[in-house]
Amino acid sequence: MKISIVGAGSVRFALQLIGDIAKTENLSGAFISLMDINQEKLHTVHFLAQKYAEELGAQLSFEKTTSLEQTLEGADFVINTAAPLYPERYEKVTEIGEKHGYYRGIDSQEFNMVSTYSYVICSYPDLKLSLEIARLMEKLCPEAWLLQTANPVFEVTQLLTQTTRAKVIGFCHGFSGVFEVFRALGLEPQEVDWQVAGVNHGIWMNRFLYRGKDAYPLLEEWIEKNASSWKPRTPWDVQLSPAVIDMYRFYGMLPIGDTCRNGSWKYNYNLETKRRWYGEFGGIDNEVERPRYHQQLRESKRKLLDLAQEIQKHPHSKLTEIYPELFSKEKMSGEQHIPFINALSGGPEARLILNLQNQGVISGLPDDVVVEIPVVVRKDGLYPEKLEPDLTWRIKEMYLMPRILRMRWALEAFLSQDKRVLEEFLVRDPRTRSFEQIQAVLEEIMSLPINEELARYFGYR
Amino acid sequence: MKISIVGAGSVRFALQLIGDIAKTENLSGAFISLMDINQEKLHTVHFLAQKYAEELGAQLSFEKTTSLEQTLEGADFVINTAAPLYPERYEKVTEIGEKHGYYRGIDSQEFNMVSTYSYVICSYPDLKLSLEIARLMEKLCPEAWLLQTANPVFEVTQLLTQTTRAKVIGFCHGFSGVFEVFRALGLEPQEVDWQVAGVNHGIWMNRFLYRGKDAYPLLEEWIEKNASSWKPRTPWDVQLSPAVIDMYRFYGMLPIGDTCRNGSWKYNYNLETKRRWYGEFGGIDNEVERPRYHQQLRESKRKLLDLAQEIQKHPHSKLTEIYPELFSKEKMSGEQHIPFINALSGGPEARLILNLQNQGVISGLPDDVVVEIPVVVRKDGLYPEKLEPDLTWRIKEMYLMPRILRMRWALEAFLSQDKRVLEEFLVRDPRTRSFEQIQAVLEEIMSLPINEELARYFGYR
Repeated sequence: MKISIVGAGSVRFALQLIGDIAKTENLSGAFISLMDINQEKLHTVHFLAQKYAEELGAQLSFEKTTSLEQTLEGADFVINTAAPLYPERYEKVTEIGEKHGYYRGIDSQEFNMVSTYSYVICSYPDLKLSLEIARLMEKLCPEAWLLQTANPVFEVTQLLTQTTRAKVIGFCHGFSGVFEVFRALGLEPQEVDWQVAGVNHGIWMNRFLYRGKDAYPLLEEWIEKNASSWKPRTPWDVQLSPAVIDMYRFYGMLPIGDTCRNGSWKYNYNLETKRRWYGEFGGIDNEVERPRYHQQLRESKRKLLDLAQEIQKHPHSKLTEIYPELFSKEKMSGEQHIPFINALSGGPEARLILNLQNQGVISGLPDDVVVEIPVVVRKDGLYPEKLEPDLTWRIKEMYLMPRILRMRWALEAFLSQDKRVLEEFLVRDPRTRSFEQIQAVLEEIMSLPINEELARYFGYR
Repeated sequence: MKISIVGAGSVRFALQLIGDIAKTENLSGAFISLMDINQEKLHTVHFLAQKYAEELGAQLSFEKTTSLEQTLEGADFVINTAAPLYPERYEKVTEIGEKHGYYRGIDSQEFNMVSTYSYVICSYPDLKLSLEIARLMEKLCPEAWLLQTANPVFEVTQLLTQTTRAKVIGFCHGFSGVFEVFRALGLEPQEVDWQVAGVNHGIWMNRFLYRGKDAYPLLEEWIEKNASSWKPRTPWDVQLSPAVIDMYRFYGMLPIGDTCRNGSWKYNYNLETKRRWYGEFGGIDNEVERPRYHQQLRESKRKLLDLAQEIQKHPHSKLTEIYPELFSKEKMSGEQHIPFINALSGGPEARLILNLQNQGVISGLPDDVVVEIPVVVRKDGLYPEKLEPDLTWRIKEMYLMPRILRMRWALEAFLSQDKRVLEEFLVRDPRTRSFEQIQAVLEEIMSLPINEELARYFGYR
């Protein structure tokens, strides 16, 4: 079996996957192809992956390549984690946006404020690369599965589903927010019967039973007793923030994971507003915490590169001892990729939260839209669960549909190459005061050297 | 046959209908029930209607009543033209909106800037009254047709279709904008094969053939030669304005009638912007022309009241001679109501543009949504035409769907009585800067004496 990891230079994420593969007996003997265009990072991840697998006593073989064709050739599973130029391009585009009156940048949009990616401007390279991968897969490994992990998962998975024959499934771990809820409420996770549904970064806990009984009253109790004294431990800790409670009250079901970050402007007008709704840090999507996080990302990547050099000098030292948080001996990462691959390869069936075409699972939403829903994965295929109960009317018509329309507009911009669609996005943006403002911000973004290709693509040059 | 006109105190509109009935041979002998809660206007319209019918030599009989029950009892057709408290309530609410930073009032919304009505705040009495009529019709005349004419036609027709068993059809004459296009292009109307489709005040000319050939190239020619020198004759004259051409270019088909008034903020940020896009008057939906028009409305109503008094003094003078523009001898008004009634009553079949449930006519839009489409009306029923060609993707996904969602939110507010839905409308409004602004503007609107009932309805008092 060949598993390809595109964008393996993410290092940390690729190593988590390697660890999961190494701990999955059924995948013993797998051939893992690591691909990245950054030679230094590719070399590092290749070295660390081999060492880690060896320490775990796993029978895995590896290749490293900078060629997309080589990594895809004959692959059974392709995991796309590549985020070209992130976070640098995001930082630059956000800065220009703010200069023109768009707080947190033009890509921060209603129901899509998660600032690790964006709709159109910043996501152009992601859409382009993923489309290239899928088109190559049609030729080089037409039966392989593409596990789309890089953001924007919603837009990319939809684009590839709509325009290629690649077997693409979108992956995200945001659903694990349910476990934070269970912990806060003191529930045994294995005694909870739960479902979540929606679109990526916009999912809601439609089913919540504890030991067979409706558990929402337990949440109500928690809110009454604890909501007012709730404090976030980190900027990421927002699963029980006031924004979540407010959305729960309005929409009728609990938003899970990143969903509360993707609320409306009500929670996001400025840092002060964000602090009121997401706790003292104001969440992660703001001008203080986001740059800090990007800094941490860079340091952590640097640390892994240093670690690799260190280990090369002292080949007897052990990753699992020096850095057990990342190179764990036994614990699985919690990512769904390897359980998915394992289940399709004849291992135990897995119940996962995946992104794939709706086809009637969420009633009232278009069939062709990629939704995030619970799916049972077995050797013979994917079996979406029936949703019980259904999502509320407000979630569908006041949250999901507006978000779905924005996804469609983003793909329309990408597919039509028509800059007027970008303009229309901003015409409909609450931060826009005039059409001249729109033209000015787009012109300056397009004049970035990093965006030369983008500017040509949309006819700015 | 009994035809009821609810809100007959509109006077002018009711008299147009009377004229049409009187000129329709097949409807000779009809009994017309005029209903209004304003005694003075009711008396006037009753007097003028009788006189007008008599001058035309029509065999019609009349009653006047202030009772909804009486007018509906045994009716075959009910025409609802009642617009409670318009334009006064609109003026007051707009004024408060502007004070709080909402140019043209909070009810001016993307894809819905037509300021003769509004979504929620101003349209509450219209929704309430129409629902009352439909519920009474279920009891008093369950087989009658309700011809909904008062705005908001889209929201009201949808509400009644969704929640009652009344046979409701929405009426609007906006489609007649096509004839302005034909005239400008020098086309013989009877040689044009045309269709329009969309939702009320948001329709697009999907079919445009002249003598069997695609006529859009003729429009292109007109644009090239004449668009730059185009000037509006009145504030209402916007069918070939720059806004229309811009929307045509982006959406791919020509917007008809009020559709261009219901564009995005791009054309509507302020009076200067409006003048650039709708010509020197800036269209009708602005702070100069709209008050002027309301003044004209009042004067014209006053004029009719005076005319009635005049005629009572001089019973031998003739309406058709004194005021032939309104009391025409032969010409039909162009309104679709009487041809509709006539066709269903065994007269000649009529091809009309009506508002009714989609049920697959516009592919990709929900079946239950009330759309405005061409319908052939015959004694045995209503036959929607097949649309050929289909509307463009951009019209459906970038114009109609956002408009449809707003309609759904408006009805959700009305049906749930939840003021948070009103707030959410404004959270998503480009003119909103903070949640406090939303609370302040709603609070002040709700404190108007005219809105006492509304404030109770939404729990403000």
